[in-house]
Amino acid sequence: MQDSKEYLDKKAYFEKIITLYGRNVVIEVLQDETIEIHKLHMSNSNKTDGAVETILSLAKKRGIAVTYHEKNALSRISKNAKQDQGVAIDIVANSYKNAKEIKNLKSFKLLALDGIQNPQNLGMIIRSCAGGYVDGIVLPKKSSAKISPLVIKASAGTLFKLPIYYCNTLDEVLKDLEDTKIYLLSSHAKSSIYDVQKSDRSIFVLGNESDGVSKEVEKLCNDSISIPMNRGVESLNVAVTASLIAFMK
Amino acid sequence: MQDSKEYLDKKAYFEKIITLYGRNVVIEVLQDETIEIHKLHMSNSNKTDGAVETILSLAKKRGIAVTYHEKNALSRISKNAKQDQGVAIDIVANSYKNAKEIKNLKSFKLLALDGIQNPQNLGMIIRSCAGGYVDGIVLPKKSSAKISPLVIKASAGTLFKLPIYYCNTLDEVLKDLEDTKIYLLSSHAKSSIYDVQKSDRSIFVLGNESDGVSKEVEKLCNDSISIPMNRGVESLNVAVTASLIAFMK
Repeated sequence: MQDSKEYLDKKAYFEKIITLYGRNVVIEVLQDETIEIHKLHMSNSNKTDGAVETILSLAKKRGIAVTYHEKNALSRISKNAKQDQGVAIDIVANSYKNAKEIKNLKSFKLLALDGIQNPQNLGMIIRSCAGGYVDGIVLPKKSSAKISPLVIKASAGTLFKLPIYYCNTLDEVLKDLEDTKIYLLSSHAKSSIYDVQKSDRSIFVLGNESDGVSKEVEKLCNDSISIPMNRGVESLNVAVTASLIAFMK
Repeated sequence: MQDSKEYLDKKAYFEKIITLYGRNVVIEVLQDETIEIHKLHMSNSNKTDGAVETILSLAKKRGIAVTYHEKNALSRISKNAKQDQGVAIDIVANSYKNAKEIKNLKSFKLLALDGIQNPQNLGMIIRSCAGGYVDGIVLPKKSSAKISPLVIKASAGTLFKLPIYYCNTLDEVLKDLEDTKIYLLSSHAKSSIYDVQKSDRSIFVLGNESDGVSKEVEKLCNDSISIPMNRGVESLNVAVTASLIAFMK
């Protein structure tokens, strides 16, 4: 029987693994020395062409393990048979943390994303939060864009620079937190982002591009703030909203 | 001989006209009542199908003049024979102003864009500036993205809400301005956006996504500021940078 400590360490490790696929993507990932790689997966039906040669030589140079699979097995790993082109790569997101850890933190300013679907927006949010004055992002697995090449591109190399707290749904995290200011961003709120008083533990919840924050999550917020706007403009791009909060000092 | 006042009025009117093309775009524009339309152009080689019928009935409903052209003439209007699909539409950008007017303004806070090429970024910048605390955008015709359907989409209906000062090049505008703080956004600057003192006349110059501000324009700036960043992040998306400045109070 496996030792439970070892099992839990392994589990934690595998929760940080993100699988990407497609030849250009795999080449880009292999070329980026800042990205830690767990394993390279190749279909044994791949014919050796320029791209495959490049992939294998980059993997060799970096000393990365290569595993060969039947075409179907490779597709089960990539979860996208149509676009994997017979290659997939596991990257290790060391900045990934379990959102259950949040309640043990003494102080934090976090951004929680509720259903952000657009990968470019997610990438921009990560980039702004990494550069800004935020301690991390809470990213639910359900209803959010997945980390993908588009997200990585839009994050401009900042993906693994700040903690990303993963969870299944946002409400399971928020309902567990005590002594925490949980701000709903809402155009109807009376207070504005210019009025926010610093608090030891704060989370700013941003909703989906079109539908805003879901009802379940809204109920768990204990304050709300708006971004006051001119000229009758109703809303900003969600990545812009996130950035304004990230750079509030 | 034409009266010069009338001629100049006409010239000013036509400088505000933006021509868009393609069937879906034209339908979207016609459906948006906030967009003033000068004229609809149709190729007389168009076969009457669902899209053409929709376009003509929307134009009729709004009382918009329709002009028919030979296919080649239509392409000269759209300037994109491959994608115009035999339809083009002139929209009136009433928010467009000649940048020569700036020097006559008593006070202003403007954002000047030097070579922003990405239409989504341009649209987001317009949206944030329209909602934010900025009096307008200075947009050079040379080296910038043109107003296009992608820009309009990213601006989320805010395109004509704030003045856009057009010019050929940015340096011809900046070199004419006296008593104006012209800020270069630069990661090397000692002062930061958090230190900016309000001044009566200020312009914030933002550069191209990859190359930054051009040398000619940089020379005309008389101050520089940075956005201080954490975790070794080198830069933000240019639309995010613009938004942070737009929402500085």
